[in-house]
Amino acid sequence: MTPAVRRYFDWAATALPDETLQTAAAAPFANPSSRHAEGRAAKDALEAARSRTAAVLGVSPREIVFTAGGTESNALVIHSFLRRRLESGATGALLYSAVEHPSVRENIVLLQRYGLETGEIAVGEDGRVSVPTLEKALAELEGRGKPPSFAAIMAVNNETGAINDIAGLVRQIRMGAREGRPVHVHVDCVQALGKIDMPLKGWDVDSASFSAHKLGGPRGIGAIYLRKPLLPPFGGGGQEGGIRSGTENVAGALLFAAALEKHAGASAVRENALLAGRNMARLTGGLRSIKRCMIIPPCRSESTDDDATDPGRFSPYIISAAFDGIPGEVFVRALDERGFAISTGSACSQGKRERPALAALSAALSAALGGTWQKAVFESVRFSIGRTTAESDIDALLLAVTDILKTL
Amino acid sequence: MTPAVRRYFDWAATALPDETLQTAAAAPFANPSSRHAEGRAAKDALEAARSRTAAVLGVSPREIVFTAGGTESNALVIHSFLRRRLESGATGALLYSAVEHPSVRENIVLLQRYGLETGEIAVGEDGRVSVPTLEKALAELEGRGKPPSFAAIMAVNNETGAINDIAGLVRQIRMGAREGRPVHVHVDCVQALGKIDMPLKGWDVDSASFSAHKLGGPRGIGAIYLRKPLLPPFGGGGQEGGIRSGTENVAGALLFAAALEKHAGASAVRENALLAGRNMARLTGGLRSIKRCMIIPPCRSESTDDDATDPGRFSPYIISAAFDGIPGEVFVRALDERGFAISTGSACSQGKRERPALAALSAALSAALGGTWQKAVFESVRFSIGRTTAESDIDALLLAVTDILKTL
Repeated sequence: MTPAVRRYFDWAATALPDETLQTAAAAPFANPSSRHAEGRAAKDALEAARSRTAAVLGVSPREIVFTAGGTESNALVIHSFLRRRLESGATGALLYSAVEHPSVRENIVLLQRYGLETGEIAVGEDGRVSVPTLEKALAELEGRGKPPSFAAIMAVNNETGAINDIAGLVRQIRMGAREGRPVHVHVDCVQALGKIDMPLKGWDVDSASFSAHKLGGPRGIGAIYLRKPLLPPFGGGGQEGGIRSGTENVAGALLFAAALEKHAGASAVRENALLAGRNMARLTGGLRSIKRCMIIPPCRSESTDDDATDPGRFSPYIISAAFDGIPGEVFVRALDERGFAISTGSACSQGKRERPALAALSAALSAALGGTWQKAVFESVRFSIGRTTAESDIDALLLAVTDILKTL
Repeated sequence: MTPAVRRYFDWAATALPDETLQTAAAAPFANPSSRHAEGRAAKDALEAARSRTAAVLGVSPREIVFTAGGTESNALVIHSFLRRRLESGATGALLYSAVEHPSVRENIVLLQRYGLETGEIAVGEDGRVSVPTLEKALAELEGRGKPPSFAAIMAVNNETGAINDIAGLVRQIRMGAREGRPVHVHVDCVQALGKIDMPLKGWDVDSASFSAHKLGGPRGIGAIYLRKPLLPPFGGGGQEGGIRSGTENVAGALLFAAALEKHAGASAVRENALLAGRNMARLTGGLRSIKRCMIIPPCRSESTDDDATDPGRFSPYIISAAFDGIPGEVFVRALDERGFAISTGSACSQGKRERPALAALSAALSAALGGTWQKAVFESVRFSIGRTTAESDIDALLLAVTDILKTL
């Protein structure tokens, strides 16, 4: 039995849809590849959506490729290196951070099974990729005589909310790259879009992936920022500059553009982060005062970085915490019964036995702090907030948590 | 300048959206992988959509994989053979008909570039795969010592409307298959769904692909019928039985199911085909009486197969015709200026220099009838009709065609 009042703390899995976006002008129905008036209207609408998307992201419209979502965006970029390898034989190693989303990690692991070289970048005790851990991974590849052609580092981790310093890390990668051997840097921005400042050009990255539904837009539409065209892993009708074939989802693209304009423009990001920062500070403060609660990673407890104007090391939208002696799934169920929707972590990891991102964090904590951290990390649950989260929701959540701890 | 009255004859590119489907109950917004009440409701809705889809298609719910559309469905099935090859080295040739949609052909051609063996099945002068052309292709592969592991034969051709006898062709493939070397038969059903009787189990095929927007449903959702799981080319969160990762498009799946129930059930297919058959007979009759018009393939002119109760060799929804001395694109433009939306052929082929399906048909006509057919075939335009097409639309179209021929 579920209480009538529900409070949603799983925005990182999917945002509450922004129903006001549905009022955007109806999309022309025709196939944008058709040459008649209806087709041209659809094509115009699609290109308008592309221009609006590009404008919000601060890039050129020709650098935007619409896809079906974040997972496909990551897969297309990564598998283009398989095609490069199969067609020309020449591809260096694929480097990726140990805490990447399954849609990055699993595809790189797949390419490793096909014989491509890969390297993993460890994270520090804050769950972030650091210049030293990156340097170590680069040196390891150099030592094997396998310099990288590709590196994937996510902007905001979907479980801990850890923010990577993409600009600094990219600089490091570019400095280490050999002459005539550029490294394609890909950034999974799914949890960053609309949440943190995301200067794609300033970061100097080659590609980035986005999903509409994490921003209040519809399911089934996403995009890739792509500085230069890549070899598409799949063929077909050649839509989206040949990168992503299939009849274009014009209605989806228009709604995505509308969601971006409303929630991902510079001032919206700043204002929303201000609100999220206050709520996250309230939540963090409350959790800190609970004896059996450990914020994951623990260093976040001492952090004053949950400041809205400088999000620093952690996103104000996501926090993980472990409750001593209570398996994460039990805690999720106990909160669910009290009307609160949270997750143990990535929705895309639910039901999986292996959780490589958590294992990497646990290893980093053990190395830095000693002791075994596996239990705590795997006990962790994720709270994620969004644009409609109110102070009263936070207070109710903290009360429920305290209540649960009395009985469990 | 476009006339105020528009008549749409490009249903094969995309159907007019069925706005009544939008009234389906709102989809639960949460991520179906989340374990809380909201997530479970989303999961339940997704599985309900799957069951309803399976029921209309006459298959089991566990045999349905939701995708982003027809192109992705075709690509996932075909590229699973690349994965099989890369992981185990063991994959026979990939056989495909010469008139497949680009999303089939281009992916098979890609795998050929990677070193996989392929074989092409020619079509007859009616644009259909026949038992003799299939036998010839199979014998050719046997002669090269490369028996097939895979065969792709579309149900209804998207340019000529030619219907392949899938049951008979599959029987032939199964008979020719070596002991312990089964052939995976894939059928692109994008232009067949809701248009012809489609007994997937009776056909004895291994997979089939579908698209919602060709049926009045939304863009960005499609499905694969998959008799047995296959190795997914892309990795990720493992949704859709691991075959297609990415947060599931629950709203899209529900609308697709609604479109199927309304337009692809046995009686709807029969009734709609009756209406389409009458309209197509009217259109065919009119075109036959126009001197400079040649129906493509020409044998369709003598055919009485445009009978609704037995669609026989050609779909009552699609017809191609060439107008002597007028390039297809010029004719499309002339009709567009008069308010009619038609295409030269596959929307997915617009703007491409190579049109392999038309080249294959042109070769078949030259072989059967002598002479050169390339010009006529490449001059052809496609008329495709749908559920709202009225007799008066057909009559207006025929008048406009006659009018254009006076000036061009």
